[in-house]
Amino acid sequence: MAQKPAIPKGTRDFTPVEMAKRNYIFDSIKAIFLKYGYQPIETPAMENLSTLMGKYGEEGDKLLFKILNSGDFLAKADIDALKEKNSIKTTTQIADKGLRYDLTVPFARFVVQHQNNITFPFKRYQMQPVWRADRPQKGRYREFYQCDVDVVGSNSLINEVELIQIVDDVYKALKINVLVKMNNRKILSGIADIIGQADKIVDITVAIDKLDKIGIQKVNDELIQKGLPREAVDKLQPIINLSGTNQQKLDTLKTVLKASETGLKGVAEMETVFSYLQNINVTTKVELDLTLARGLNYYTGAIFEVKALDMEIGSITGGGRYDDLTGVFGLRNVSGVGISFGADRIYDVMNQLDLYPKESIVSTRLMFVNFGQREAMYSLQALQKVRNAGINAELYPDAAKMGKQMNYANKKEIAFVAMAGENEIQQGKLTLKNMHSGEQQLLSVEEVINIIG
Amino acid sequence: MAQKPAIPKGTRDFTPVEMAKRNYIFDSIKAIFLKYGYQPIETPAMENLSTLMGKYGEEGDKLLFKILNSGDFLAKADIDALKEKNSIKTTTQIADKGLRYDLTVPFARFVVQHQNNITFPFKRYQMQPVWRADRPQKGRYREFYQCDVDVVGSNSLINEVELIQIVDDVYKALKINVLVKMNNRKILSGIADIIGQADKIVDITVAIDKLDKIGIQKVNDELIQKGLPREAVDKLQPIINLSGTNQQKLDTLKTVLKASETGLKGVAEMETVFSYLQNINVTTKVELDLTLARGLNYYTGAIFEVKALDMEIGSITGGGRYDDLTGVFGLRNVSGVGISFGADRIYDVMNQLDLYPKESIVSTRLMFVNFGQREAMYSLQALQKVRNAGINAELYPDAAKMGKQMNYANKKEIAFVAMAGENEIQQGKLTLKNMHSGEQQLLSVEEVINIIG
Repeated sequence: MAQKPAIPKGTRDFTPVEMAKRNYIFDSIKAIFLKYGYQPIETPAMENLSTLMGKYGEEGDKLLFKILNSGDFLAKADIDALKEKNSIKTTTQIADKGLRYDLTVPFARFVVQHQNNITFPFKRYQMQPVWRADRPQKGRYREFYQCDVDVVGSNSLINEVELIQIVDDVYKALKINVLVKMNNRKILSGIADIIGQADKIVDITVAIDKLDKIGIQKVNDELIQKGLPREAVDKLQPIINLSGTNQQKLDTLKTVLKASETGLKGVAEMETVFSYLQNINVTTKVELDLTLARGLNYYTGAIFEVKALDMEIGSITGGGRYDDLTGVFGLRNVSGVGISFGADRIYDVMNQLDLYPKESIVSTRLMFVNFGQREAMYSLQALQKVRNAGINAELYPDAAKMGKQMNYANKKEIAFVAMAGENEIQQGKLTLKNMHSGEQQLLSVEEVINIIG
Repeated sequence: MAQKPAIPKGTRDFTPVEMAKRNYIFDSIKAIFLKYGYQPIETPAMENLSTLMGKYGEEGDKLLFKILNSGDFLAKADIDALKEKNSIKTTTQIADKGLRYDLTVPFARFVVQHQNNITFPFKRYQMQPVWRADRPQKGRYREFYQCDVDVVGSNSLINEVELIQIVDDVYKALKINVLVKMNNRKILSGIADIIGQADKIVDITVAIDKLDKIGIQKVNDELIQKGLPREAVDKLQPIINLSGTNQQKLDTLKTVLKASETGLKGVAEMETVFSYLQNINVTTKVELDLTLARGLNYYTGAIFEVKALDMEIGSITGGGRYDDLTGVFGLRNVSGVGISFGADRIYDVMNQLDLYPKESIVSTRLMFVNFGQREAMYSLQALQKVRNAGINAELYPDAAKMGKQMNYANKKEIAFVAMAGENEIQQGKLTLKNMHSGEQQLLSVEEVINIIG
């Protein structure tokens, strides 16, 4: 009985056209990472569960794909837990390994494990799939690619500046219009300091984020409702109403945060970054946005998020600075900063806005028609010359009907077809057909190479 | 408590230098696949276990990495099997998915699943990791890459010829001297036909393979010992002693196999392939080797194996023609032929013979020394011009001691260092240091680009 073939839900196959599009994105990003001195690493798909568990919160632990131990995996399992069908207790007894959930934890593990062979500051990029047992839905997959670029072992704000340059370069190369939003965890800490409400920072940013939609009065109501004292809400007014240029915002913050050393440090960091950006040619708009608070417990300095301007979609790139990523694996005081490009969302944006250059999708440029063994032999010799000239070309392998062969060339979007029958062979030439215009010419191989190369 | 970081046994991290070497191999192979009109596909790391089980024999089923179902996976498990700790019975009750074991079965599944969107003949390549729970040992990993190239939906022997051309091109590009061994399953079937011992084909090829080491007498003894009648062994003598050129071997086989239609068909196929090869410029030696019998039950025509000549290592590429790969998934009568390049063994050969071009390993070409904020600003502007000229370059992010910065450049094998201090800034120039010769020159950015670009 034949099986009806299918793949696990939330996973995808990639056809040649989809691969060409993805590779266009990956190659564009990769070239820019290299241009800035970042080098690739790769880590195994499987990590020890001890490396992964507890790093992504309780929900994350559940969403990790766990790999069943090989052999007689039940031998070491607790019999009582099995009898009770206690899945939670049994999991770690029968599974030692899990699939990578992101690239950040494996990177931290890598840095610690290879610390003696790494030259710091260590600038690395990593483009690999990750797996999450999330409920699949439109745009959310159980296997998807992340493209991370990080530098660890340097406190310099030049790294933040270069990451913004990378964002600028990548999205210019891909022709996606974007806005970079930036914030600084130290500013958020400063705000919490001056109003004495450190634990309310998330509530505050969530409420401020609604200003445009609901207005200042309702924002204030929400803050009161979340338990902020009236006095604290009053102190927050200049921050909620923050507007103007980045410099104007920073000037306001300097006044408001003057009692918080941390807050002022955050403001100074932002000023330094903006001052660098003004002096180099970064045309992508970078906007200070105090409502930006992604991964708050994780980041310690700059926070970045990139939004596509011509399409409604979540953030397509994000990241920030973290001061103790490797601490959990035993290497303290290594500061790092990095961003992650969401390849799948970028893919969706590029598709919807139709931003792929046509030549990025087509691979074969020339197809030789197959008229039979003798003609094929002649074509194979011509093919070698064409390929040696760096042109992707193929001979239809079977002496099938002309219509079938031409249909194949059309489906593969091959631009030119070469024909070598009796007549061409006698003259040592080829008939070249331009599949777009229909024009045919009798040419030598060298002429063909000149025309299509 | 900090965890001591480690990765699962049999898996590896890849550092930037290792990645550069691997990418050199992958990129070289990929460019050649494209040149021959093959297009990439990718399939998910996870496949349904129903797709994978039973395809690799009993041993293969054991070596599949299985993925624990998410959530309360024990709920659907048989309580009696759990009480007995019956791992085998429990496995498929708690795991629906497994990691890809090779690229062939996922490819067959892909072809059947997407048959209505595929234009046949379908020429695809696929370069992805596979996972096997094998006992790890030197050169054998639990995660490793395969680079497969196959064409399905064409019976033409031109495909076999082109695969040999691809082998020829790939190993010339990588500068590895190789020998291609070729056989044909139909010839082996013919041999079994004429001696009436179809089930002994593996024993026969294994024994013949020892001829050089143990001599004809001991080969014959071994055949008798394996249960071949004396008469059959007598009939085999011309085949065991087969020598000379490919054509001489084929001439002998034509005589010996004259009673076997299948055998003669195999001989004719080989003659056709060799005749094509003689007419095109394939300089890699292709040798008919009757002892080649890899995956016997699987292949139906040509069988290939590639050996490196300058290093003792197993086969570095192999494959063949199969007539019913997709049958198990419900699509019959689709013939295909393909080969698989063993990236990890190729990596070992390239390392041992030191075949990497130096420029393939280095990524950053120029580093700017960081003398402080003002100088860094100046350097960042120069850097932009250098990068826009397509040169990979970086600024050391911190104003660290000169020795530390130079050490970083040395460790990263950066060829040139640029310095911009007070003096250079006043003149609008840079001091360029050649890290190899030690030579220093005062130059404009444009001159730097000309020299190092």
